Order: sequence, then structure tokens, then C-alpha cells
Amino acid sequence: MADDGSVSDQLRFSKGHGTENDFVLVPDPDGKLELSAERVRRLADRRAGIGGDGVIRVVRSAAAPEVADQADDAEWFMDYRNADGSLAEMCGNGIRVFARYLLREGLVNGARSFRVATRNGPKDITVRGDDIAVDLGAWRVAGGEAALAAGGDAHVRVHGLPGPMAALSLDLGNPHTVVLLPGEADLAAADLTRPPGVTPEPPEGTNVELVVPLASGHLAMRVQERGVGETRSCGTGAAAAALAARAWSLAAGGEPGSAEVPDAWRVDVPGGTVRVTALSGDRVELAGPAVLVADGVTSL
Amino acid sequence: MADDGSVSDQLRFSKGHGTENDFVLVPDPDGKLELSAERVRRLADRRAGIGGDGVIRVVRSAAAPEVADQADDAEWFMDYRNADGSLAEMCGNGIRVFARYLLREGLVNGARSFRVATRNGPKDITVRGDDIAVDLGAWRVAGGEAALAAGGDAHVRVHGLPGPMAALSLDLGNPHTVVLLPGEADLAAADLTRPPGVTPEPPEGTNVELVVPLASGHLAMRVQERGVGETRSCGTGAAAAALAARAWSLAAGGEPGSAEVPDAWRVDVPGGTVRVTALSGDRVELAGPAVLVADGVTSL
Repeated sequence: MADDGSVSDQLRFSKGHGTENDFVLVPDPDGKLELSAERVRRLADRRAGIGGDGVIRVVRSAAAPEVADQADDAEWFMDYRNADGSLAEMCGNGIRVFARYLLREGLVNGARSFRVATRNGPKDITVRGDDIAVDLGAWRVAGGEAALAAGGDAHVRVHGLPGPMAALSLDLGNPHTVVLLPGEADLAAADLTRPPGVTPEPPEGTNVELVVPLASGHLAMRVQERGVGETRSCGTGAAAAALAARAWSLAAGGEPGSAEVPDAWRVDVPGGTVRVTALSGDRVELAGPAVLVADGVTSL
Repeated sequence: MADDGSVSDQLRFSKGHGTENDFVLVPDPDGKLELSAERVRRLADRRAGIGGDGVIRVVRSAAAPEVADQADDAEWFMDYRNADGSLAEMCGNGIRVFARYLLREGLVNGARSFRVATRNGPKDITVRGDDIAVDLGAWRVAGGEAALAAGGDAHVRVHGLPGPMAALSLDLGNPHTVVLLPGEADLAAADLTRPPGVTPEPPEGTNVELVVPLASGHLAMRVQERGVGETRSCGTGAAAAALAARAWSLAAGGEPGSAEVPDAWRVDVPGGTVRVTALSGDRVELAGPAVLVADGVTSL
């Protein structure tokens, strides 16, 4: 940099968040940008950079070889990078912020529902009032009927709480282990500055959700993300929490669609509130706010 | 916000940092902006906002009643706000980033040295190559000669280290307590996720600096900022660390200006390196990098 702080090679960016899961978006419609892992790390750095949980390149699917087969279906590709520079297949809150960006920029011709390409295949987006919803696709209880019948397939020891506690593992494309806590005081007392201990230890690690039912279809949740620590929100984690609560109620003999086993939940996370809906065919939808807060140029 | 994410009331901003102490700068040359504590908190929020250790309004001194008496001397006022929305008198790294902004924007007519108004009075800025230096003004050993003769005036217990350790309190406008550690392994082992215990307990709290001498005029430092936690850098903290090391060497019989008692130090902090120079009249200068990384508009 010159003495006067002038820079070359400026990059346009926007910043946004979904329930305080935050992202740096970089427009690159024609796929001309070389977004190296090093540059992603610089952009995502919260003190020396702009800061975000991830960086998202906004590129036409036809201009991105890895998703060119989705181009007929989904004009835009959410090229998601983790803050450490690695590639990610999907991000439930990230894709909702990505969709907000497409809407604001007029890149989906005013459509209220459209499809977005990801490394995990095309995802359906729907605008619902101020919220943006995404069909996260198929999910399953990792241990199947046996795990449900036993009330869980793992035990979790959370610092600051008596333990170990029974837990249920779910697969939403990424692994989740959900623990039901008796009350909000337990949720507040949990120390998530250190990762909970999960037994048996998942070979690839897992995200741990601590959940408290507040009312029919209403949960409070805190989450410890694998390899990251406690975060303000986790889209697939909120879905896993609601689906585990539903599975437990079903296993206890509740009727699907009844007050005991609702199809739709409100999940309160530290960064806000998202809504989770069980769709037919063992699919699940995540909905919630997605906000763009700043636009600019950077020399990073 | 409308469904399409459009916003009114856009605010221009820049983001920059000095050794990873980071700031959101808001230009307001004519003092027309009502920058509420709530808006400062939104801007400084690292997930729902832009993110920074502080927010700095860039305003002409003549347009700011609180520093109008400095206007003849210092055209621009660094109106510094802490991330929690409260006012601050000074920030050693903040004023260096502020100066970089004035230089880049051509607001000081290309001068290589100029004066900036602060709530703590006017401060002298000097450009030194790629670095920007600020005269932080007067400092003193809080406990005076008696504290020096005793090797300190406080004891500090740091989590993760055997304790308690003797410490020296310095006043640089804000309070600092400096602890000398035997080696870099101790510096690495210190657990600063919790504040160190200081005895006697300072009524208004204190910033704690852990310091390891690496060579003549060369220190490594970590800092726990009062009310904040461990940070990547602290300008007055680096100055306090160097001044305490110097005071100890002087008390041990070293000659001012000798290798044992140099007037200039390099201080390595987690976010980079700053330089501290003892000036005549018990004044101290802080120098180091100051970088602007992004410019934009925000709806926050």
C-alpha cells in the first residue's frame, strides 16, 4: 500500500446475516474472479478484514464448471467458502442471505420462488413475507428406529451441567447431536466455551444442539458448531433440534400434526428466531430473516 | 426494511485497523450526523453489523462544540466511541487509523505532520514511512519512586500461571498494570479468557499487560483490556509495557540510552508490531501500521 493508503485491485462486496450468522458476498456474475483461500481468509477476518462466518461468491451457474449441470434449473450458484478458506457444500443461513441478495439486485426477475445451485445440488427458495425459506432437503435419524426406541444413540457431557445426558444423532447432510435439557436455567448454565464430550465419539465430529421445549412447536436452542465453537445461529442445527424434538414426541406415541407433534416450529437461537417445517418425503424447510447491512469496495 | 432489502438513510463508512485493533470510520465533516449510542452499537456489532472495537466520527473541530477550542490548532476531531456506544477520550491505535483516513482523503493538504483534536486534547501525528506515529502525551508510574524501589505496587494472579506476581501500575490517561514474565512459554500459557486478579483491586479496574523481554528494546506482550477481554493489540498498553520495562531497568541502575535502558522499543502484540519511543518531558510516542481495508455504505 502507498503512504496515502491508496489501493489497486478493488473488490466489490456486500455484508449480510441471517439470525447473526454473517457473510461477505462477492459479486462475480461471469466467473472471472480468482477467489483464493488466502483472499477468503482475509475477507472473513473479523479484525484485519471485513469479517464473517463465511464468504459467498455470487456467480452464474453457467459460468461455474462445478455446477454447470444445474444451470438450466438454477441460474445462480452460491459458491460458499468457510472462513478458513475451505469449500463448503451448503449453508442454511448463507443461502437465505444469498437469496436476499439476488432479490435486491433484481437477478431473479422478481420471482418469489426460485432455485439456487449449490455443491450439494439445487435448493428451492421461497419468499414468505419478510422471511426467506429454503428447502434443506432430506434428513434422517442417524441410528434409525433403534435409536429412537432407545431414546437416543449417544451421550453428551456438557461443561457446567450434570451429565452425561442421552442424545439423538441426526444427519442433515452434516452431522448433529441433539440434547434435550429440562429448562431454560440449564440452557443458560451450559458452558460452551469448550466442546461438549460426545460418546461414542463421532469419527468426523458433530455439531451439538442443546434444546429446551418452551411450548408446543416452540424451542430454545444453543449450538456448538463442529470446529468453530458456540455460534449465534446454525440453520441446519435449528432444523435438527426441531426434528429431534418431533421424533422423540412421535416415539412417545404422539399423533403427527397434533399439538404434541406439530409440523412447524419456532426455534429461538441467540441471534434471533428461525422457523422449521417438516415437509413431506422426509424433507425439511428452514425460514427466517435474511438482511443485507452494508455494500462497499475493499482492497483485501 | 422492504422485502427487496432496499434501505433508506444510508451512511457512508470506512473500515480500518492498526495491528488488528479495528474501527468503523464515519465521515461527517460538517457535524450534521446524529450518531446515537444505539447506532454505534449496531455499527460495531461483529455479526449483525460491520464490526469494530470502536466507531470514529470524522468531523471538523469547528463543527464539534466539545472541541471547538482546539479548532485553530487541529482541523479534525476524532470523535471516538467505544463499541458499547459510550464516549472515549482517546485511543492510541484509533487515532493512527483516523490519521491514515485524513491522509488518504486529502484532508490535511499532504502534510506529514499535523494535529488531531480529541476529548483528551490535541494530539500530534507524524507520518514515518509506512507507519503513523502519535504523541500519546505524558505518563507516570502511578505509585511513584516508592513503587519503583519496591519493584512494583501490585500483585497479579494470571490463570494458567503460578502466581501471584509483582506488577507495576502506570497511568497513561488510562490505568495499566504491567507484569514481567520469565519467558515466551509463560506468555503462551497464560489464560486470558478470564481477567487476571489484581491486588490491591483498582477501584476503576485496570488493563493488564503480560510482558516478556526478547532482546534490548524488544518485548512481546499480551493484553487483557478492562471491560473487554483479551484483544489483539492495545496502543497505550504497548506503551505502558515498554515504559514499565524501562523503569525497571532504570531502577536496577541502568544508564538511560544504554542497551539496558533504550529509549525506543519494538513491542510484538498478537495483531502485529508497534514501536514505542520515550520522548523528553515524560511523554511517549506510539508508532505502527494503520490500514484502511474497506469503504462502503450501510443501512445500519
